[in-house]
Amino acid sequence: METTYTIGIDIGGTNTVVGVVATNGTILAREKFPTRSCGANFTCFTDKIERYIYALTQQYNLAGKIDGIGIGAPNGNHGNGTIAFASNLPWKEPFPIVRLLQERTHLPVALINDAKAAAIGERTYGAARGMRDFIIITLGTGVGSGIVANGELIFGHDGLAGELGHFIIRRGGRPCGCGRCGCLETYCSARGMARTAIELLQESTEDSPLRHVKEEEITSKAVYDAAEAGDPIAQKVFEMTGEILGESLADFMTFSSPEAIILFGGVTAAGERLLQPIRKALNKNLLCVYQTPQLLLSELPTDDAAILGAAAVGVEAALHASGQSKGAMAS
Amino acid sequence: METTYTIGIDIGGTNTVVGVVATNGTILAREKFPTRSCGANFTCFTDKIERYIYALTQQYNLAGKIDGIGIGAPNGNHGNGTIAFASNLPWKEPFPIVRLLQERTHLPVALINDAKAAAIGERTYGAARGMRDFIIITLGTGVGSGIVANGELIFGHDGLAGELGHFIIRRGGRPCGCGRCGCLETYCSARGMARTAIELLQESTEDSPLRHVKEEEITSKAVYDAAEAGDPIAQKVFEMTGEILGESLADFMTFSSPEAIILFGGVTAAGERLLQPIRKALNKNLLCVYQTPQLLLSELPTDDAAILGAAAVGVEAALHASGQSKGAMAS
Repeated sequence: METTYTIGIDIGGTNTVVGVVATNGTILAREKFPTRSCGANFTCFTDKIERYIYALTQQYNLAGKIDGIGIGAPNGNHGNGTIAFASNLPWKEPFPIVRLLQERTHLPVALINDAKAAAIGERTYGAARGMRDFIIITLGTGVGSGIVANGELIFGHDGLAGELGHFIIRRGGRPCGCGRCGCLETYCSARGMARTAIELLQESTEDSPLRHVKEEEITSKAVYDAAEAGDPIAQKVFEMTGEILGESLADFMTFSSPEAIILFGGVTAAGERLLQPIRKALNKNLLCVYQTPQLLLSELPTDDAAILGAAAVGVEAALHASGQSKGAMAS
Repeated sequence: METTYTIGIDIGGTNTVVGVVATNGTILAREKFPTRSCGANFTCFTDKIERYIYALTQQYNLAGKIDGIGIGAPNGNHGNGTIAFASNLPWKEPFPIVRLLQERTHLPVALINDAKAAAIGERTYGAARGMRDFIIITLGTGVGSGIVANGELIFGHDGLAGELGHFIIRRGGRPCGCGRCGCLETYCSARGMARTAIELLQESTEDSPLRHVKEEEITSKAVYDAAEAGDPIAQKVFEMTGEILGESLADFMTFSSPEAIILFGGVTAAGERLLQPIRKALNKNLLCVYQTPQLLLSELPTDDAAILGAAAVGVEAALHASGQSKGAMAS
């Protein structure tokens, strides 16, 4: 079978990356430009993307070999193909990027938010290959999630399913940016871990290398380094983070009973230091009818994950358009 | 179009009911026998069901007009068609009821647990007609649930999705029969409400008609009657129950963002007395990106719900067998 290609577009707060991805997940090429280089003008932005796609197609001799285009973006709405209300992106009005790119390229185009793109990316190229029931939890600046059940990504009636970062795990707990208190994100995001570190430092007088870092500069990486160097406070941060995550995952099991839970994002670089307390709390809190789900780390390389996720969304769009899929992602 | 019929079989701890249901949800006839009348012998039990189906078919002249058979039972496993480990049922070994009934009747047969049957029943004949994303919560002796997302009932990889009665809403809260603490069921089932009443009676010396009822005889019905008669303690029970349910439903939204949440079961007879505090807590705890989902009461008549749910499962089995459905319930 001849190799075909998909365009994956990752729209981030700083840069937008346009990549060409082969069926097997190899990234053939990628081009990058500043997302704000057109200001709030989305026609200009669409022009740029079109030009990059054209240039990549010419350069690699891919005319007729590109199946579809997938876009991952914060607040990307799969249902209406529009990016709206994304606080880190430049557009003030809803940006109907799917329609505009379809008109220019005549290819199947699909849009999705970042965490759901990660789920589709993981199923197409990563740790969830062949799985029909799994949850991915993205642990970054915030906490996001993508839920696949019965072989399909769950969208909810309004495209807003899978906001597990705002699942309340400590009622009356830490204030969250969402205006409520005790959300998972306030404890288990990179920022949440820094908050835990600051709280623990304030609660004791014990020495810690973290005392020599300014509060606003404490990162999950700094906490990890301190923990590896033997700092008990930093080690406690991982234990507390893992415990709360494990408790949450046990609750998530009662919803969709996935065979695996996949963790993704910078925080997961801590590996066993994070996984061990998660596993312990998950097993302790799991309803007895369930077997412990597989707890896996993402298999997508950190730098490529966003492009692969977006490309995977393009693959699904192409399959859907060709009638080979019932639209696993249809909302 | 000629009316066709489905057999709905409701296997309960006391009785098993075999009913004939028309496409529009009318129950044409039903026959009942004690579930334990064959002891643990499931061949005898299958014989009985076969005889009832045959008799009903003859009596109502339905030969060739029955499309499928649906069975609702505690611990009914849709994936393997077997009833196993159901503490209230007589069979000590896994009972492969689907295979046995298929061999006898040559009709499509499907099995499901009671709460999932309620979800399918509600979609086929009740309040969820036409909905692709909803959750049903069954409030009875225990708390069960059925989750429909992307138009499909969610099963999970092992058929055990939707155990929301064991979602932990108060960490370290009331001991639950499952061995853990703080499960939704310990607060919002009929028994949970009785526990709340007993706790409130112990905490105060205020007069209440519930003080004249033996603790073990306090039911959600008795609490409702006392609340309606103006008893503040009984009214508080409904407020607390509704508050905890509302908080839970807000968390469930972050998972599958359903358009509606449907409440089913004896406890819901309290109507607005329960719905009002649920609505209040749901709105208070809902993540701001969500619109308040519809909060609905089941539209299935209490006495018929189990048969209608089972029959709806039979309808799906028939559609699946005829290729008209992609198997909305396929595990």
